[in-house]
Amino acid sequence: MKIAVFGIGLIGGSLALSLRETGFASEIWGIEKNPEHGKKALTLGLVDRLGDMDDALREAELIIVATPVNVMIPLVVGLLDRVRPGQVVMDVGSTKNNLIEAVRNHPNRANFIATHPMAGTEFSGPEAAIPRLFEGKCTVLVNAAESGEGALALAQKMYAALGMRIVEMDAAEHDVHTAYVSHISHISSFALALTVLEKEKDEEKIFELASAGFTSTVRLAKSEADTWIPIFQQNRDNVLDVLDEHISVLSRFRSLLIKNNFEEFHRLIHQANDIKRILRN
Amino acid sequence: MKIAVFGIGLIGGSLALSLRETGFASEIWGIEKNPEHGKKALTLGLVDRLGDMDDALREAELIIVATPVNVMIPLVVGLLDRVRPGQVVMDVGSTKNNLIEAVRNHPNRANFIATHPMAGTEFSGPEAAIPRLFEGKCTVLVNAAESGEGALALAQKMYAALGMRIVEMDAAEHDVHTAYVSHISHISSFALALTVLEKEKDEEKIFELASAGFTSTVRLAKSEADTWIPIFQQNRDNVLDVLDEHISVLSRFRSLLIKNNFEEFHRLIHQANDIKRILRN
Repeated sequence: MKIAVFGIGLIGGSLALSLRETGFASEIWGIEKNPEHGKKALTLGLVDRLGDMDDALREAELIIVATPVNVMIPLVVGLLDRVRPGQVVMDVGSTKNNLIEAVRNHPNRANFIATHPMAGTEFSGPEAAIPRLFEGKCTVLVNAAESGEGALALAQKMYAALGMRIVEMDAAEHDVHTAYVSHISHISSFALALTVLEKEKDEEKIFELASAGFTSTVRLAKSEADTWIPIFQQNRDNVLDVLDEHISVLSRFRSLLIKNNFEEFHRLIHQANDIKRILRN
Repeated sequence: MKIAVFGIGLIGGSLALSLRETGFASEIWGIEKNPEHGKKALTLGLVDRLGDMDDALREAELIIVATPVNVMIPLVVGLLDRVRPGQVVMDVGSTKNNLIEAVRNHPNRANFIATHPMAGTEFSGPEAAIPRLFEGKCTVLVNAAESGEGALALAQKMYAALGMRIVEMDAAEHDVHTAYVSHISHISSFALALTVLEKEKDEEKIFELASAGFTSTVRLAKSEADTWIPIFQQNRDNVLDVLDEHISVLSRFRSLLIKNNFEEFHRLIHQANDIKRILRN
């Protein structure tokens, strides 16, 4: 199958790699606004050729949109305006409410399927692309009932080929859950990195002492602002809600420390340990 | 060398394993208050035999104290009261100010060396012990000038045998730095786990969607309350100071979201990205 991928970064590039490796794609066109990234995607063999929107619409049976989420909405609408019968447009973005709203009444809505493979790393750009990023992970199909049968079947087939578990959700539900299991983790990591960088002027000491625990807690703080600001923007209200809750838990810890109430603090940590039941590793 | 280890949990057990594997220890006595843990430590082959304080003082050339930090202070003082000439007592705890203060004027202060190998996992108890936990990591020798030459030399030799880099610090400096690079990470993880657990009642959804990013940010929330409460208690003022700073950074993010000031938010994330220079992986 001929596939076009808009945005050959961590997600788009890893998809391209995996789709070819699994034999799902016979030829991959890359559409990349950043010429440096385009060149690298070719050199690294992530895509077979570079092209533009016309190429994608002419050549590809499946068009995957893997750009930052702010670029995605006008791009998906523009693609749907010109899509051919049977051609499928799929996004792989981290927020859904606005996107689903933007295409709701589009005459070619059936050709579009909204998806979110829950996988990533803290790195970005075509060099960050890795094979098997998606294997064994979970992907969400969003408002699948609004997609045509062909688009839905193609998405299911593609994600099965990548070895992903598939769940379905509506856009509102998706955006709430991702605020909890992904967006707040990034906010927390960015804040922790700033906290340590602002107060710890003696960087050599951080470098020396930083243990595995610290590293794993702040690793997401390496993530790209150009990826994450649009996500926080699109999912602002849910992120604010979770952030308020998070600040309130931290303030409760603070107050317990001030009052030397370590008994209650102990009880809360014990309660937090319950996360063991949920995390698989 | 005959070694006695008080507390055969994650740290004590991993030390016992590694010290035998490297040939540094010829025989290891385990002293464990929890009989279940003692039995497991024997079964798992972490120690050669179980004993009590008398055994440790009679048999061991080196006595390592790897208990929770609240138990450590009376224990170290009690050991120093009865230590033989040439015998060395070493702690491996996460906080130092109070301990160093408690032994400052002890007549056998020279027999004691305070150390903190910066390594760990979110697991606890003898089953959590793993070989090579310490290899390639950093260990801190604290107020080393107050230890006798023999105690200092033995600690240096032991940590070199474990493949650790050695840095020296005074207790105040150590407790400030660890608040930044270890204690706040745990507070943040515990809070994040509580935030998600309290708001996300639909646990199946967290289980399905939890990505690698979420997992790495909350993994420390699995850590044992009995280990961490005493650490927060002993290092309360430093932890409070860093926690205040952390809450203030999160509140700044919150205010930027409310004001839709994504430009400034972008700038701060870019600044947080600077953590790349400090983290090695």
